Amino acid sequence: MKNRITNLFNIDYPIIQGGMVWNSGWRLAAAVSNSGGLGLIGAGSLKPDLLKEHILKAKSATKKPFGVNLPIFSPYADKQIQTIIENDVKIVFTSAGSPNKYTSLLKSHDIIVVHVVSSVAFAQKSEQAGVDAIVAEGFEAGGHNGREETTTMCLIPSVKQAINVPLIAAGGIATGSGMLAALSLGADGVQLGSRFAATQEASSNENYKNLIVEAKEGDTQLRLKQLAPVRLLKNEFYNNVVALEARGASANELKALLGKGRAMKGMFEGDLVEGELEIGQVSSLISSVLPVREVFEQLLSEYRKSIQEFKTDKYQF
Amino acid sequence: MKNRITNLFNIDYPIIQGGMVWNSGWRLAAAVSNSGGLGLIGAGSLKPDLLKEHILKAKSATKKPFGVNLPIFSPYADKQIQTIIENDVKIVFTSAGSPNKYTSLLKSHDIIVVHVVSSVAFAQKSEQAGVDAIVAEGFEAGGHNGREETTTMCLIPSVKQAINVPLIAAGGIATGSGMLAALSLGADGVQLGSRFAATQEASSNENYKNLIVEAKEGDTQLRLKQLAPVRLLKNEFYNNVVALEARGASANELKALLGKGRAMKGMFEGDLVEGELEIGQVSSLISSVLPVREVFEQLLSEYRKSIQEFKTDKYQF
Repeated sequence: MKNRITNLFNIDYPIIQGGMVWNSGWRLAAAVSNSGGLGLIGAGSLKPDLLKEHILKAKSATKKPFGVNLPIFSPYADKQIQTIIENDVKIVFTSAGSPNKYTSLLKSHDIIVVHVVSSVAFAQKSEQAGVDAIVAEGFEAGGHNGREETTTMCLIPSVKQAINVPLIAAGGIATGSGMLAALSLGADGVQLGSRFAATQEASSNENYKNLIVEAKEGDTQLRLKQLAPVRLLKNEFYNNVVALEARGASANELKALLGKGRAMKGMFEGDLVEGELEIGQVSSLISSVLPVREVFEQLLSEYRKSIQEFKTDKYQF
Repeated sequence: MKNRITNLFNIDYPIIQGGMVWNSGWRLAAAVSNSGGLGLIGAGSLKPDLLKEHILKAKSATKKPFGVNLPIFSPYADKQIQTIIENDVKIVFTSAGSPNKYTSLLKSHDIIVVHVVSSVAFAQKSEQAGVDAIVAEGFEAGGHNGREETTTMCLIPSVKQAINVPLIAAGGIATGSGMLAALSLGADGVQLGSRFAATQEASSNENYKNLIVEAKEGDTQLRLKQLAPVRLLKNEFYNNVVALEARGASANELKALLGKGRAMKGMFEGDLVEGELEIGQVSSLISSVLPVREVFEQLLSEYRKSIQEFKTDKYQF
């Protein structure tokens, strides 16, 4: 119980597994919580009935705290919120929408509420809405992302100056030294997505996990800014997006290309050609698919090694 | 003389002032070197005769090591290189072009050569070309930038894995805790641009310096990607770029809008409406125009405070 994040969630390490569509079901969330972090079921790709099933399975797989991440823009959001309340989930991370929409309702049920933001303005709005903590997610993060394009290096200290509630850094963190860097910048904890997508317990397809491991620096880019900016691994679908955008395509043309179910096709069904493959820039630093427990062992041993390094003469200026 | 960067340049602190057009003349470079860092004269906005004048003035203003930053694409680059060699400059940072172009020539004159890159591929190419160190500059940096859009959090560890020469992190660093974060990520030193643009010794216009201080998170963006990507402060010129880009304008239309001398107009003449105002995202963390010596005092005291923090219980997981 060492800092504001471990205290808030009653966890051992200030390490949160980001809620990710098609990746983070009960199995991943429970494994992360059992390893001493905070696991989150990603409700974005789960209809209310399936979300209920995942919550119940997570409860039987771990006695530790876990949560649900809910993208507010989902057409099922109202029903999902009911499912969350009825099934006694204690921690909810909301994202992709206004923090005013559900925070009061959730708080009235004694649920810990965290909102995910990509700018100072939304961080302040979240604090005013009464959230218990904020995730600030930088431009390098995978999946949906903000329009300000502020990176983790710049976003974390700027948000820190603007708010008082605990702050969780996300975007570009997959290693112990990345975790240390985020804490240097003022974060109280870290949220990792890509690193946990490349685990045995993630519900995504093996093809997709293997591609995360192969990804190199420069292999992702933020696209579809006319719809909602999303960071994608480069593949044939990505190339089609780029070609359409270069022609000055309208939002409707892009919507038509995107169609329905493309994220499921890519990440869950493993179609690496036609599927939408969301992942962070930090995929370049991930070199193997591991069990969650080994991810924690690596993260913590790297973190401890980095912090020891700082005690050596080399770093005293 | 504690690490590979302080050893390489024979300086007290591994802090380098980035070469910036219209900002970094002899006065800024000498002040940085006199404070124990490495000052760089930015040759990008200096014709060969004027570059010579700045080199001579820097020599009379400091006995400490200083260098010149030379953008390779400059039409004057060949003549500038001659000026550098003839005037016995000992340290050259090259950027915006191939590291193969001048590295051998400079090395044959016993000049320390550092190349600035924004990707792993160019870092490897630079090492093969024989450079003594590499600056890896993330997406958040001001001015001209890479096409991969890799942020400092992801770029530094990726480059570190790929090269053996000393590594300098740039992009998003303006504070002591940012410096510590960059070192956590594996850098041997840091290069700061925006922070030194907002100093009394910078040659840029007061209007521009004051706008850096006022800039908030979200006030810059990478634009003109069809020409050469450049990070700009939002102003009327910026808005005109955005409007043209939204209409799907050609590179030629953008070139026509840009015209000639717009960076000088903005940063040197202080036209905040029509001028091109290059600055990094980290401008959101800069709250006053200071003398260089105070920048160093702040940086180092913040750095030392951050490193002490890490020794407390709060950070031992």
